[in-house]
Amino acid sequence: MTLKLPAIAVNGIINQQVSPLDRGFTYGDGVFETCRMIDAKIPLWNLHSQRLQKSCHQLMIPVVIELVESYIAQLIACVSSRDLTDAVVKIIVTRGQGGRGYRIATEAQPTLCIGIFSPAKYAENYADAGISVRMCSHRLSCNKALAGLKHLNRLEHILARAEWNDDAIAEGLLLDSNNYLIEATASNIFCTKNGILLTPDLTEAGVAGVLRRLIIEDLSPKLGLTLQIKKLTLNDLLTADEIFLCNSVNGIWPVVNISSQHETQFHIGKTTRLLQQELQHELQKK
Amino acid sequence: MTLKLPAIAVNGIINQQVSPLDRGFTYGDGVFETCRMIDAKIPLWNLHSQRLQKSCHQLMIPVVIELVESYIAQLIACVSSRDLTDAVVKIIVTRGQGGRGYRIATEAQPTLCIGIFSPAKYAENYADAGISVRMCSHRLSCNKALAGLKHLNRLEHILARAEWNDDAIAEGLLLDSNNYLIEATASNIFCTKNGILLTPDLTEAGVAGVLRRLIIEDLSPKLGLTLQIKKLTLNDLLTADEIFLCNSVNGIWPVVNISSQHETQFHIGKTTRLLQQELQHELQKK
Repeated sequence: MTLKLPAIAVNGIINQQVSPLDRGFTYGDGVFETCRMIDAKIPLWNLHSQRLQKSCHQLMIPVVIELVESYIAQLIACVSSRDLTDAVVKIIVTRGQGGRGYRIATEAQPTLCIGIFSPAKYAENYADAGISVRMCSHRLSCNKALAGLKHLNRLEHILARAEWNDDAIAEGLLLDSNNYLIEATASNIFCTKNGILLTPDLTEAGVAGVLRRLIIEDLSPKLGLTLQIKKLTLNDLLTADEIFLCNSVNGIWPVVNISSQHETQFHIGKTTRLLQQELQHELQKK
Repeated sequence: MTLKLPAIAVNGIINQQVSPLDRGFTYGDGVFETCRMIDAKIPLWNLHSQRLQKSCHQLMIPVVIELVESYIAQLIACVSSRDLTDAVVKIIVTRGQGGRGYRIATEAQPTLCIGIFSPAKYAENYADAGISVRMCSHRLSCNKALAGLKHLNRLEHILARAEWNDDAIAEGLLLDSNNYLIEATASNIFCTKNGILLTPDLTEAGVAGVLRRLIIEDLSPKLGLTLQIKKLTLNDLLTADEIFLCNSVNGIWPVVNISSQHETQFHIGKTTRLLQQELQHELQKK
């Protein structure tokens, strides 16, 4: 059987639906990963797998990563290799069914949903030419128990993304309720100032992206960049030298314009281009 | 056809499943209501219906309440009237499918899921004898855009409910990140002090329950009670005269014990009993 995209399987069964009693549906009780696939492989799988397991552990969802991997492999086998040259793999793990109300049933079996999707069309142009972004007025709430996790409670990001419809604006930047810069609606953010690479501390809010981690732990050291993870304000951002967004599907997008109370322009700088090259190199290596 | 409980229909189709692309499943992008049913009727439907519409409006989900009502009626018609004497009706409304990532598709059709369940067994004893509760260590995050809504992003309440397994503890009380008292994991909270009925302000966090609203707008005025909605601390609570929890399914539960750093005992007082009687009266009237 050859499936067209999107190809989706739930608990290993192709085109399976989800129970309306699934806690993913009733409470957003789960986590997800969105991974870039190149030539039927997920180059950053190691990092996605680690985050998935860490998030599940923190939410006490007993995921078995080998089962996730075997479901991905089974679904890949059903899709034409032409459709897997450049694709997006989405993995949803919920707590499954059971439990009265919010209470967790100890016997609950997680639901594992795998989907393979076509990539969006914009990515390459954005990476070259840079993007315009806006400041969202929605503020992310602070919660140490959920910060960093890519969980299924995404109403805040949906409300933020609903603030604009202008296709010329590629992303929206989010502050938290204490007015610290956290991330964009679906990307992490970095900037440089006086030769130092900076990215927001995410212990109170935000999603700790896989590509953010790769940049922090792997690409930056390789390039000899000095990096600081710290609380950043909007003013820190607007006075930065270079700014870029990143996520594991789209790679690195330079920011050339921020519309806040005023418009602020930025140049695409050396550090951004070096990191883009190093990422390209890294993805090809895997 | 006569269905056994739980009887569930999705978009009017009995035993239908949910698409794994439904935004309720992928992002918790929706709202719900949990209603008490007595003799095949939902006595507080008017209030549930208003909250459902208000929540959907705030989240820009174009729900059609007449469609919800017709699906409830259709499902009721499939269940034996004996099973509807005392039941729980759960309504989930999600944004449906569509939209790239967090972005909302303007053409999305909401998913309407109706379920009729048997009631839990504990309710009556708790209402008479009172309950023991504990303070949760999890803190609710503050977000004015989501506060009050009964939305599907419930990880915070799940983490709070996971803090204890002792069946002698009926509920857990929640403070927000600023240490103000907000609610219990699945109930609202009231207390009395010097003859005044007090309940937390929910503009920053919490679910504004239907029974809470009935008590504030209907039962208290009828009983001539003075009521204040205000920011309350744990100390306000521990020095209160009477405390009770409420939700539309379980009614009013007096709190007789709070375990925090110490155990604090409370008497079941006159105001609590009067409100229980008035509620009983109100439910029978409808």
